[in-house]
Formats: sequence, C-alpha cells, structure tokens
Amino acid sequence: MAAVEILKFPISSPADTTPLDRLKEAGYEASQILAVVGKTEGNGCVNDFSRTLASAVWEPRIPQDAVTIFSGGTEGVLSPHVTFFVRAHQGVATGLITAIGRTRVLAPHEVGTSAHSLQVAHTVSQMMQQASVTPAQVHLVLVKCPLLTSAKIEAIRAESRTPVTTDTYESMAKSRYASAVGIALALEELSHDMLEEASASQNIWSAKASCSSGAELEDCHVLVLATDPAGAGQQQGHLHAVSRYMADAIDASAVRDLLAQVESANGKVVQVFAKAQADPRGHVRSWRHTMNTDSDIHSTRHARAAVGGLIAGLVSDCEIYVSGGAEGQGPSGGGSLCMVYKT
Amino acid sequence: MAAVEILKFPISSPADTTPLDRLKEAGYEASQILAVVGKTEGNGCVNDFSRTLASAVWEPRIPQDAVTIFSGGTEGVLSPHVTFFVRAHQGVATGLITAIGRTRVLAPHEVGTSAHSLQVAHTVSQMMQQASVTPAQVHLVLVKCPLLTSAKIEAIRAESRTPVTTDTYESMAKSRYASAVGIALALEELSHDMLEEASASQNIWSAKASCSSGAELEDCHVLVLATDPAGAGQQQGHLHAVSRYMADAIDASAVRDLLAQVESANGKVVQVFAKAQADPRGHVRSWRHTMNTDSDIHSTRHARAAVGGLIAGLVSDCEIYVSGGAEGQGPSGGGSLCMVYKT
Amino acid sequence: MAAVEILKFPISSPADTTPLDRLKEAGYEASQILAVVGKTEGNGCVNDFSRTLASAVWEPRIPQDAVTIFSGGTEGVLSPHVTFFVRAHQGVATGLITAIGRTRVLAPHEVGTSAHSLQVAHTVSQMMQQASVTPAQVHLVLVKCPLLTSAKIEAIRAESRTPVTTDTYESMAKSRYASAVGIALALEELSHDMLEEASASQNIWSAKASCSSGAELEDCHVLVLATDPAGAGQQQGHLHAVSRYMADAIDASAVRDLLAQVESANGKVVQVFAKAQADPRGHVRSWRHTMNTDSDIHSTRHARAAVGGLIAGLVSDCEIYVSGGAEGQGPSGGGSLCMVYKT
Amino acid sequence: MAAVEILKFPISSPADTTPLDRLKEAGYEASQILAVVGKTEGNGCVNDFSRTLASAVWEPRIPQDAVTIFSGGTEGVLSPHVTFFVRAHQGVATGLITAIGRTRVLAPHEVGTSAHSLQVAHTVSQMMQQASVTPAQVHLVLVKCPLLTSAKIEAIRAESRTPVTTDTYESMAKSRYASAVGIALALEELSHDMLEEASASQNIWSAKASCSSGAELEDCHVLVLATDPAGAGQQQGHLHAVSRYMADAIDASAVRDLLAQVESANGKVVQVFAKAQADPRGHVRSWRHTMNTDSDIHSTRHARAAVGGLIAGLVSDCEIYVSGGAEGQGPSGGGSLCMVYKT
Repeated sequence: MAAVEILKFPISSPADTTPLDRLKEAGYEASQILAVVGKTEGNGCVNDFSRTLASAVWEPRIPQDAVTIFSGGTEGVLSPHVTFFVRAHQGVATGLITAIGRTRVLAPHEVGTSAHSLQVAHTVSQMMQQASVTPAQVHLVLVKCPLLTSAKIEAIRAESRTPVTTDTYESMAKSRYASAVGIALALEELSHDMLEEASASQNIWSAKASCSSGAELEDCHVLVLATDPAGAGQQQGHLHAVSRYMADAIDASAVRDLLAQVESANGKVVQVFAKAQADPRGHVRSWRHTMNTDSDIHSTRHARAAVGGLIAGLVSDCEIYVSGGAEGQGPSGGGSLCMVYKT
Repeated sequence: MAAVEILKFPISSPADTTPLDRLKEAGYEASQILAVVGKTEGNGCVNDFSRTLASAVWEPRIPQDAVTIFSGGTEGVLSPHVTFFVRAHQGVATGLITAIGRTRVLAPHEVGTSAHSLQVAHTVSQMMQQASVTPAQVHLVLVKCPLLTSAKIEAIRAESRTPVTTDTYESMAKSRYASAVGIALALEELSHDMLEEASASQNIWSAKASCSSGAELEDCHVLVLATDPAGAGQQQGHLHAVSRYMADAIDASAVRDLLAQVESANGKVVQVFAKAQADPRGHVRSWRHTMNTDSDIHSTRHARAAVGGLIAGLVSDCEIYVSGGAEGQGPSGGGSLCMVYKT
Repeated sequence: MAAVEILKFPISSPADTTPLDRLKEAGYEASQILAVVGKTEGNGCVNDFSRTLASAVWEPRIPQDAVTIFSGGTEGVLSPHVTFFVRAHQGVATGLITAIGRTRVLAPHEVGTSAHSLQVAHTVSQMMQQASVTPAQVHLVLVKCPLLTSAKIEAIRAESRTPVTTDTYESMAKSRYASAVGIALALEELSHDMLEEASASQNIWSAKASCSSGAELEDCHVLVLATDPAGAGQQQGHLHAVSRYMADAIDASAVRDLLAQVESANGKVVQVFAKAQADPRGHVRSWRHTMNTDSDIHSTRHARAAVGGLIAGLVSDCEIYVSGGAEGQGPSGGGSLCMVYKT
Repeated sequence: MAAVEILKFPISSPADTTPLDRLKEAGYEASQILAVVGKTEGNGCVNDFSRTLASAVWEPRIPQDAVTIFSGGTEGVLSPHVTFFVRAHQGVATGLITAIGRTRVLAPHEVGTSAHSLQVAHTVSQMMQQASVTPAQVHLVLVKCPLLTSAKIEAIRAESRTPVTTDTYESMAKSRYASAVGIALALEELSHDMLEEASASQNIWSAKASCSSGAELEDCHVLVLATDPAGAGQQQGHLHAVSRYMADAIDASAVRDLLAQVESANGKVVQVFAKAQADPRGHVRSWRHTMNTDSDIHSTRHARAAVGGLIAGLVSDCEIYVSGGAEGQGPSGGGSLCMVYKT
C-alpha cells in the first residue's frame, strides 16, 4: 500500500497518452503510477476494441505491475478520460492509500465461478492485511476480470468441461458477479460458507465493489482504495472517500447523500466511481423500462447513459467513472457509488 | 380552446390502448380526448415503426381531429406511456386550456424550409387568437411534423427541385427546426423579417417549443398549452405550467428551478415535457462527448437517455416526455423544459 | 387443404396493404387468402414493431383463420414484400396444395420446450392426414411461434416455474427450435421416443422447417406446403417446389442445385424460402466469423444480410424470404431452403 | 515498384500480429513487407477503434514506409485477416508489381475536395511513371484517406473555412470519392479539365479504385498493383490480376465473369478486392432496399454483409477484402472488383 494522489485528465481518443504530459506538469512521474482507470468510447461490450487499444498504448508507458482498468462506454454525456492513482511523493501522507495486485491466471472454465471468487477474495484479503486496513476503512475495490470469448468457450468444451455460459456477452456479467462475490468475502460482508449459495443465487452484493470484464486479460487486476490507517483526520488538502449503494438507476438521493457529506466537510469532489445496471426485472421502481428488450442497444449502454446523465448533472462533471454491469455491485438494478474528495 | 385535464398512463407496448379503460375509470370519455402524446419504445429515428403502430391503433379510437404525437425512444430509464390532454367536463375550469390544430399538407420540397415555418406560425397564431391568449400565457407548443423519406426525396428531384437535405435522418432535424422557428414567430420571439436569416442560421430557438418528426404524416399537428385567460389564480386542484430552457444536457439547476416553483406553490408535478440534444459542437460545457461520433447509436438516442436519466432522477418519475432532437427548441446542446403541476 | 396460387408483391412500409389491390388485379379476392408471409423492415429481434404493425394492418383485411407470418429483417439487399398463399379458383388444380392451422395457446412456461414441440407436431400431423399427403410430398412447413417477453418471464416465475431462458432474445431461438422439432416429428424425421433427447441436445433438424418467433402471438401458426397428391405431373403453368438444406451460410452449391432442378424442368422461380443462421461455433467452414461477438448487431441480422446477398445474387431477385434463426431448421450454421417454381 | 508476392492469413483479433510468424514460415521477412491490407472487426465507421488498434500493433513491426490499410467491418461471413504485399526475393519476377506511396498531409479543409483528388492523382501518376506502367497495366489502386473528426471540423471553422461536410460519417464518403477521382485522373479515365465538375457531381468512377477512410491518418496512403511490364506472360506460378466493376450489389455475373477468366487460365484465386455500397437511390435494380433508412445499422455495414455473402459464396472463401463505401469506385450502387490469381 502507498499513500495515493488521484488526478484525472481528458483523452481525445483511446490511444491518447498525453495525460502523461499533464501528469508530469502536475509534478508526478510515470514511474509513480499505481493504476490508470479510464473510460473509453467503445461499446463496453464484447467487441470493444477501444479498451484493447487503450491497454496497448498505456501498458508500455507505465510500471509493469501497475493496474489498468479501461471501462468501455461513454454513452450520453460521459466524457472519455483517465484517472491516475499515483504513489504520493516520499513521506507525504494524503489521507488515502492504494494497493494494487493481481490474482493468478484463471483457467477459462473458472471464469464466473466460485473458484474465480475465491481467487479475488484471496488477493484482496492479502492486500488488506499487508496494509493493515480493516474492512470499514476500505471504500472501493476495483477489479478488472476476464470474459469468455468464442475461442475460450471452444477450449472449455474441448476439455469436456462446461462453461459458465456459452454467450460471450453474458459471460461478462458472470465474471463481474464472481469478482464482486470475492470482494464481499474479503470485506467480510459474506462468509465463506455462504459462497456456493451466493454463486448460485446471483443476488449477493457489495456496495464497495466495482468490476469490469474485458477480453484482453486472463487474470484479475485488483485495486483497493482505503483510508490511511496512520492518517490524521481532515487535514487541509487531504483526500477522503465515501461510498454507499444506489438503490436503483434514478436514486438521486444516494448521490445527494454523498454530496452532502462532501459539502459538510468543505470538500471538493475529485472523482466519482459508479456502477450502473438495467434492472433485470424490467422495471425501475414501478415503471417498466425497455433496456432489456432493446435488441439494437445492449442494456449496459442504456444504463450507463441514464445513470451517467443523473450523476453528471448532480456533480456538474462529465469526466466521471460510470461503468456498466453492476451484478453483485449493489442491489439488483442499482449499483455501487464512491466519491473521492479533497478537503 | 378548451379547459384541459392532463392524465398519464403506462403502456405495455406501442399497440396498447388499455389507457382508454383507465381514462374511463377516471371519469372521461374517449370523445373528450384532445390529444394523445406518447413515448413509444422504438429507436425514435427514421425506421421507428413503434410510432406508426401507435398511430394505427390509437387513431380509430379517438376523435378524428385529436392530435397524436408519438415520440419514439424510451432509452435508459424512460418508461413507455401516454399523456392524455382531455377536454374538461362542461363548465369546469382547470386553470389550463389547450387548443389543437393542423397546418395544411406540406409539399415534400417545403419540409424543413421557411415555408414550413410560416405554416406552423400561421396555425399557432390563429389558435392563440381564437383563445385570446397572449404569448406570455403560452407554456408549451407541441408540434409533430413530417420528415423526408427516400420516396419523398425522389419525388422532389423528379420535380427538379432541391430537397432541404438528401439524408432521411437529417431531414428529421431540419423539419423540427422549421417547426420551432414557426413557434418562435407565433410567440413573437422572432420577427417575420428575420425569418429567412433564422432559417439559414439554424440558431434561433424558443424555450416553449417541442417538435417531433415522423414518417407517418404530411401536415403538422399542433397543440398549444396555455394558462386559462379567464382563470382565477391558484385554486385548489388547479393545473399550472412553468417552462424554461435547459442550457445543456446536464443542466440540473434548470430542473431544480422549476421544481422549486412547483414546490413553493405546494404543487405536485403532473408531467414534464423536455427536449434533449447532443451538443453539435461535440462538447458538454468543456467536456468532450462522443454522441456525434458513435456510428452504432444515433446521437438522439444518447441524448434522450442522458437527459431522461437526469430528469427522472430529480423528479422521481420515469413516465416523462423526453424527446430527442432539440433543434430550435432551446439553446444548442440544451432544450426546452415544461412542467405541468397541480395545486 | 386447398390448391394454392402463390403471388408476391412489394410493400412500401410494414403498414402497406396495397398488395391487396394488386391481388385483385390478378383476379383474386382477399377472401381467398390462406396466408400472408411477409418480410418487414424491422430488426427481426425482440423489439421489432414492424411485424406487430404489419399484423395490425393485415389481420382485419383477410379471413380470420388465415395465417400471417411476418419475419422482420430486410438487411442488405433484401426487399420488403408479402407473399400470398391464395386458395385457387374452384376446380382449378395448381400442382401444390396448402393447409393452414394453429396449435392451442401455449402457456409461457411451455414456450421452447418439448410440450411446445408436441403441439406443433400434433397440428402438422393432423393437417397432413386431412390432406392425405405423405412426408415426402411436403416441401415446406412454416411456423410462427411465441417468444418470452419480460412480462411472460415474470409470470412464469410468479408460478414458481422455470422459464426455458430468462433472456428474451434467446427465447426466440428456443421457440424456433421447439417448433422445428415438432415439424421433424410430424415428418417422421424424428421418432417420438427421441423427443426429450432432441429437446435437450438442440441439434436435431428438418430441412423443410421454417420457423419465426414474435411477441405478438400466444399460439403457433402453421402453414404446410405440399405437392397435390391428386396432381398430374408437370402440366403447363403448374407450381412445383423443391427443398433441401444449405450446409452453411456460403453454400452456393445448394442454391445452384435447386436452380438446376428448376431449370431442367423449364421452370421459373416464384419464391425462395430460406433460413439463415450465424454458426454458433464461431466459424464458417474454417474461417472465423464475428457475428456472435458483435455487440452492436445481433447475429441474426448479420446472417440474413449475408445469406440474403448470396441467394438474391444467384436468383436475381431481392424479394425473397430469408428469415433469421435457423435453429433446428438445417444443420448448425446452415438452414432450410425451398424453391417454389412454375413450369 | 517491386515484383510482389501476395499472401493472406487469418487474425484472431485486430491486435493479432502472429501472421508475421506465418510469413516467416513462408520464407519472407517483415522487412520485405510493402503493405498490410487487412479487414478488422469493428463497425467500419467513425468510431471504429479496431482499425486504430491494428495500425498501432502493426506499424512498429513493419518497414516505416510500408502502407497499412485496415478496412473495418467483417459483417456476415467476412473473416478478419490480413493480406501481405511482399517484395519478392531478389531477382524473382512474379508477374505482378506493386508500388507504394503517400501524398503530402492534407489540411482538414482539403479533405474530400478537388485539392484532395489532385494530391492523389499526383502521387499515383508519379508511381506509375517510375515503374513505367500504363493505365491498362494497372489493376488496382488502394487508397487510405483521412476523415473529418469533430475536432477537425472545429479547426476548419476556426479558420473561417467551410468543411466539405459537418457530419463525421458523411466525411468518410466525401473523402473516398475525392480519392477515387484522383485515381481516375491518374488512370486517364478522367481529364483534368473535368475535375471540378467531377467533384461537384459525385458521379465519376473508376473500376480500379478501392478507397477507405479512417480517423488515424492525415495524408493518403497509396498502393498500386500492376502487371510487370517486363513480364513474360503466363509462366507457371505467376501472379495475375483481372478487374471490372459490379453494376449493383447482386451482380453475380460480374463475379462469375472474373472467375471464368481465372478458370480459363487454370488459375487459383489468391485474393479478391471488392467495394460495396448501398445504392443511394434506395433500390437494387427495381427492388426497394432499406439500407439507407435503417437508423440502427449504417448502410455500409449492410452493404458489406450482402456483397460479402455473395462473393464469399461464389469464390468459396471468407477471407476476402470487401470494403464499404464505393463512392467513385464503380457505378452508383455497385463497386470495383479485382481478383488476383496464381497460375
């Protein structure tokens, strides 16, 4: 774990690495980068090559163990950008710390299963232990996890195993859910003896989980954001984070609640991390929605656009991280929400 | 003009006319319907047959001169529904009045031009005059106008005339703009000697205009909503309306402003009518958006999803009328906004 | 069963019923219509209201027991049209006969299951028996079957039953497969004791099956096209049909084979009925295709466009019936193919 | 110019450069690569990052002056692949020669104009002159040209200039057309004094032109494929090329005509280069098509799928280069067609 600074910059395309120049202007070196968490302008689904492109241009430019999480989909008012998690200068405490890590490579047949959850739980727990942070001090766990491509599904079958699904798009959801269950385990929101039931039920969740799946990786990349256990409260210029869940896609009061906390601390929002999802039951509260029956636009795209519109309006910022597919990351139809702010 | 009641009901598909039963339960006959204004679940673009379907099932069931405006596109959290404008019972004043009308049929080569604007202006002016309402008393003018299909474009060329555009999708925007200019003329927001300039510049707007275009009509259908000039102020159970513009797609303060007016009058929101648009300059405030460069989803779909998410969250209602394509209906990138409420 | 004439006409939109006028010009009354089989220009998927619209405008204009099968999706060069199956004039033999029928209403939980297959098999068998045709004399069985909407899935769950799938789009495939299995049973291509295995394996098929699913019906509508058992061979002006399977989406030789049969009989193609499908294994022969990993366009749309392009080019006709989703209607990745021709 | 070998290999994603290994197995070094012409699996439209990704991974691996043309869009049965144009081993004649070149950088306001055409014409002419080939010896000219992004359109306006269009998608068409006009000039199919008229009319074409536009470049990349003027006829193992136009999207006879020429020479098809387009008049021959009114799928995607299906079926190969947007590259609604074969 390291004291962390969080900065964000716009990108003109998924291949744009000029934020490195701006980072430098802000006094940080690329070697200090712990993670690049970006929103890129693809469809955020199976054939989203904007994520792959961003990974391809960023990875040679940052430390080898840095985590890259590119979430595709800047629907509606969402604006393409990258958020840097940067190791603070030697001896500087910022109020927040960040740890990064990776699980072992998951075999294709493990993706989306309880084996996948266990690997995530194991990695997150280890990271927390090393940093001496308690579950309550953790505000956000970002995970990027693999999906099943057609090739992987064939490979699983060739081994006479059964893939968790044969639909590549659906595998993204299964993988996100398995990662979220792993986070809930590590944060002691779920006990290990409930794991199999949680895997089967698909209805366990953690409001601190934010998971994305992509075709470009085989292991899970993990980032933990937590309050510095050695921290000294609300010092001038310090970073803080608050998190909670949105109950549904129009839960303005959840956003207002966190904004009120920021305001009462005289803080300024640095970044928002939200997960969004089309309610699988086909309704937002009592109102029928059509996100799940639109065969032209995937429901994740609809959900990002709507939730992005709401949060961007309330926060007055379009460079926010709103990621689709909130399985296990908030109640069904809602999603996790984390605000990082500076006092 | 007639004193008007405004009621809204969900629909289970574009072909669902069961709201008629619910209207009856509320004490009104189909013969009292002045207008059916609906959101249907198609793509809201050229090949949106959900609107045509709704027209086909509704028109035989309502008075022949009633106006039907079906706006396609319930992206994100928007929920398919119909809003009835119903003639109030004999002798009952409701606080608001509604007039309906139609322009003459527009020749294909007139669609989207100043000739189109003049027809709309003429019809709206006549309706206002007959009802003795001033521009200030008008809160909303809804217009449904034709678009150019491939067949119409061919027909124009066969006459050796030049269509306003040869792109069927773009013709929807041109038609909406021409209708909005007509509304601005009638509301004296634009003088007649500025008409040609306004047509050419594409940058005149009225915050009380709400225009949709569809393949299923040849004339313009017009609805004017105004304060009853004979009205007696804020009586119990009376309807009121307030309107203004949203400056951009994340203008939460515009929505909050109208909500504050409703609240200060101890009112309850009955319906919201909003127009939404992807800023043609490619930015929302300083943030780059990608709605205009997404070749998979038309920008109107993005804009409805985002603005719908914002307003639905603030108003806590998904059955709101958020319609795409705000050319001339608010500043560029923003849109018109009208709230009807009951005290 | 009745001697049948087959005529086809273009439509200018899904709401266009002017083909009735052209039918009249050709000497037939609407009362003689046995079936209207059309291609409409929607997406052919869950939210395709072009089919619903066509049903809404056609059904009041044709006999109540006539079958309407509107297959959405005219991707690529495919041209919107309707094919009429018309009862021939009294005493006239045409070489082909057609029977139409319906299964009982399927409960939502039956859709896509072996219970569904049994109902289709029962209806087809009865129709064949009544017309005294053998399986070899049958060339084509068209079935339109229900899909699972979000509402139906909820209804199934409310009964504590398990839907065959919870994905509305996937339910279309399951329903088509169940219908095809029913056809294979009736044509004695599958024995009843293999039914459960066939349902589970999803790999049984009939080259004479052509099934479409839609949200607008609860039962299955069935049309059987067969050689007139009382027929007198290749008389001048008689109709004939030949059918076989396409092994994959680029099986030009299958099309050429049927065309050669037509040509050797000095015939002229009247209509082609084909099913198309993206190979679920992700390859066409040895070549990787991307239809199953394209999150912007459903694979059925890709498949119709490609197979439609091939057949339209070979037959020199764009008004052909190419329908997506060939589950059980030809080998995996291929589809059924039937040519009706006149000598 | 150089004697050229042409080889093609499948790719598993736009980032897959393993064809380099297979090229090596075939006896060629990366340093011999003159051009990589690929089909990648994006949408082929404005926000197709699969092309950018392919450029990003290929360019560091091939000679700096090599041409890369990645055409997005593998709709239907089309299979992602790359075709290498490789400099033949020293002293080896192959029957065909290839020259590569680039125009100067085009200013944004030049894109799609006659100034753009002139630059292409100039570059192609120079390349032909240096190689001493006549227009009749040229079989194919591939050009990759820039498009107008939102940023470029803003830049043009900032200079008080008028962009050729303000629609980013339409700018792709304008750019392709301007490139094709340049090719027609160089091949003496168009005289220089007709240039302005050709630019305005948008109806000049060359059957040897194949142009793609992309966001990732500022100049035009050009490849000329021609018969070796020093060649010695149909030697064993030699390469040949034939080209002609397809009159429309279902012109099977054009494909059969070239195939017959290949067959009569006892040749084997190495690669097919075709351009496809939705007829802008809305019809394929007499049949209405819906490619131009589909607001969910761009017409170029439809056209590639349909024409790809036809050619792949006739040639029995899915790794063919079918590129969308045939403005100026064949008659309206048709496209250019070139077959390279080996004897």
